[in-house]
Amino acid sequence: MAIKTLLDVEEAIQERMMTAAMLNTLVTRLSPPPIPAVQAWGKSYDGSQGSLIDLSQAVPGYPAHEKMLQWLGEAASSLAYTNYGPIEGETILREAYAAHVSEIYDAKISADNIHITSGCNQAFVCASMVAASAGHTILVTDPFYFNHETTLAMLGIKTGKVNCTASEGFVPTIDAIQMAMTPDVRALALVTPNNPTGAIYPADRLQVIFDFCRDAGIWLILDETYRDFLPDGAGAPHGLFATADWQENLIELYSFSKSFCIPGHRLGAIVAGGAVVEQIAKIMDNLQICPPRAPQAALARALPALTEWRAGNRLEIEVRAKALRDVMAELDGWALESIGAYFAFVRHPFDGMASEMVAEQLAKRAGILAIPGEYFGERQTPFLRFAFANADAQTIRELRGRLAGFGL
Amino acid sequence: MAIKTLLDVEEAIQERMMTAAMLNTLVTRLSPPPIPAVQAWGKSYDGSQGSLIDLSQAVPGYPAHEKMLQWLGEAASSLAYTNYGPIEGETILREAYAAHVSEIYDAKISADNIHITSGCNQAFVCASMVAASAGHTILVTDPFYFNHETTLAMLGIKTGKVNCTASEGFVPTIDAIQMAMTPDVRALALVTPNNPTGAIYPADRLQVIFDFCRDAGIWLILDETYRDFLPDGAGAPHGLFATADWQENLIELYSFSKSFCIPGHRLGAIVAGGAVVEQIAKIMDNLQICPPRAPQAALARALPALTEWRAGNRLEIEVRAKALRDVMAELDGWALESIGAYFAFVRHPFDGMASEMVAEQLAKRAGILAIPGEYFGERQTPFLRFAFANADAQTIRELRGRLAGFGL
Repeated sequence: MAIKTLLDVEEAIQERMMTAAMLNTLVTRLSPPPIPAVQAWGKSYDGSQGSLIDLSQAVPGYPAHEKMLQWLGEAASSLAYTNYGPIEGETILREAYAAHVSEIYDAKISADNIHITSGCNQAFVCASMVAASAGHTILVTDPFYFNHETTLAMLGIKTGKVNCTASEGFVPTIDAIQMAMTPDVRALALVTPNNPTGAIYPADRLQVIFDFCRDAGIWLILDETYRDFLPDGAGAPHGLFATADWQENLIELYSFSKSFCIPGHRLGAIVAGGAVVEQIAKIMDNLQICPPRAPQAALARALPALTEWRAGNRLEIEVRAKALRDVMAELDGWALESIGAYFAFVRHPFDGMASEMVAEQLAKRAGILAIPGEYFGERQTPFLRFAFANADAQTIRELRGRLAGFGL
Repeated sequence: MAIKTLLDVEEAIQERMMTAAMLNTLVTRLSPPPIPAVQAWGKSYDGSQGSLIDLSQAVPGYPAHEKMLQWLGEAASSLAYTNYGPIEGETILREAYAAHVSEIYDAKISADNIHITSGCNQAFVCASMVAASAGHTILVTDPFYFNHETTLAMLGIKTGKVNCTASEGFVPTIDAIQMAMTPDVRALALVTPNNPTGAIYPADRLQVIFDFCRDAGIWLILDETYRDFLPDGAGAPHGLFATADWQENLIELYSFSKSFCIPGHRLGAIVAGGAVVEQIAKIMDNLQICPPRAPQAALARALPALTEWRAGNRLEIEVRAKALRDVMAELDGWALESIGAYFAFVRHPFDGMASEMVAEQLAKRAGILAIPGEYFGERQTPFLRFAFANADAQTIRELRGRLAGFGL
């Protein structure tokens, strides 16, 4: 008994001495990542309405090209890419992407303007960090892409909201941007084609917004992850890269994940002034030394070679958009408020009800995975985001029966 | 003339309106990444002393195993890894690595304790961010691993320095840690085997340091990137994972780059409490959604399969360490102050001269690439870091003639 008591005392002392270390509250306060939470609802679906229709995470609903897989395999099995590579990315990919971007925008972009990243979220981290530090403000739209908001929050960068309305097609206006401006704003971050609304910002509006940023001496961070899914024949997304001295105010972001159906290989890109790329290289050296090399080598081959395949996918996604338009036109109570290159923003008929509850029930009872509007801003409770490009037209047509028969 | 004048005026007005956006001074103030700068000196070497001997960046001087390359190729060419994967890493790799770590430390580590990252620099970013935000302090040793200091600086986290001396074998003492403590310290970051000195921190010292962190209520961030190159038969590096409630104060980091000779594929790992892993997943979701998937699948196969090959490499690196010891013993003026698993910290004979100048001249005239001591802390000017594991024993023996004949 005596020994036991001594041990108890020793243990008690040890416990008193031991102080759990503190966690960063900027991180603990963040909501858990939303996509796994939504996918978990889908696991409770009983299958009674047919297969699960996953319109949650933006994931191309068709496979990568077989040549893409072959090139990925060749590069990954080569000794040539096992060592560290250039921080800014493989020269062959920077050159290929610079040529690609120059063609899209009819502008002169060189390899020095390109920084390859491990996906477009990382590109946004780099753009935010090169523009701002804790205590500054970066403006985002409301609704926003949730990872933009959580990235800024974890960095201690304040988020200002530019209110976007259904009546304006969720395209930000200069008035709304002006309303959100404060003296500590360092950048305005926009996504076009938009996530979550799908809204395609017109080139002339982007020019006016860019001019506004210039006058205000702030960065325009332009995330064009879904650029390749703009409607066929729409022309250049904007003329900003042809503006003199665009390098002083513009940082443009892109993802190879959606267009090449290879999100698991994690590659994105930044276009910026050479001096900005040099600063981003310092950030990237700390974040991960260099992006994964083998997929960069494969992409350098795919970028010029798979142009036609990507054009075909663009047309396929237009077919899917049309299918969703047709479905929504025939449904009572549901409204397609906005649809664009990859996403649709849909108003649900359950007035005043949190869209998180609607989405959870849709997942569990109707087998439809969609992201609640609130995840893109607390005012967005009337809406759901459908990543319609994930599903083929036939699957999308199945939504009609499931949504028509869905009640709460 | 009138038109030209009008255009001039318009241009002048436009220029006045245009305000270049500001860059984050926490980033612009960082030095450029040191490795490319050192490698640039090597390009000026005329070859007069024989081939360039690159002891700068830690890069295994032997190729990846052919099976590793085969598995990398198989995974990369598979459709199975093209989509997004789990934020925390592939389950098969988390399980394989948990088993591996459990064996090394004779402890019970489960897959829930593992977060896979895109290299160990990214693991350090996650560990720092989960422990601290801008305005807090994290302690590092002096000399430090330069990317640790620049990572903290760009995040606005203050760096406190724990003075390590040659007389103590560059192993931090409790006294030195206590001297560096301030109320805003959130973590102590250590690297063992050390970069840059090579010092192997004894298990009992690590235990005392861990107990200190516990008493102080701070995190011990322990970077064990070079763990696999500890001398043969040295036993477990430490017993910290067997300590009750280690999860409350310990975050351990590792890199697959050096052991498997695949830095270009960018994979590292964190071992932490399950609750900490959950918080780190929020950071990683923002940083890059998930680590590159295909190399994770390949590593899950390699981890148990290439045990003997890695043991052979460990012996090979001991041979290289012995070769460097022999070389340094015969050189006048040069002193091997510290040598360990991968690196040696060498005192140069040019008393009072900046080691940056010594390293530059060594590169350009003697064809030896080494990192100047100042890059690891401004007090480290008497030293150079040799990443001796990069070169085979025969190459290392060449250093004798080159260093003996080198004057400034």
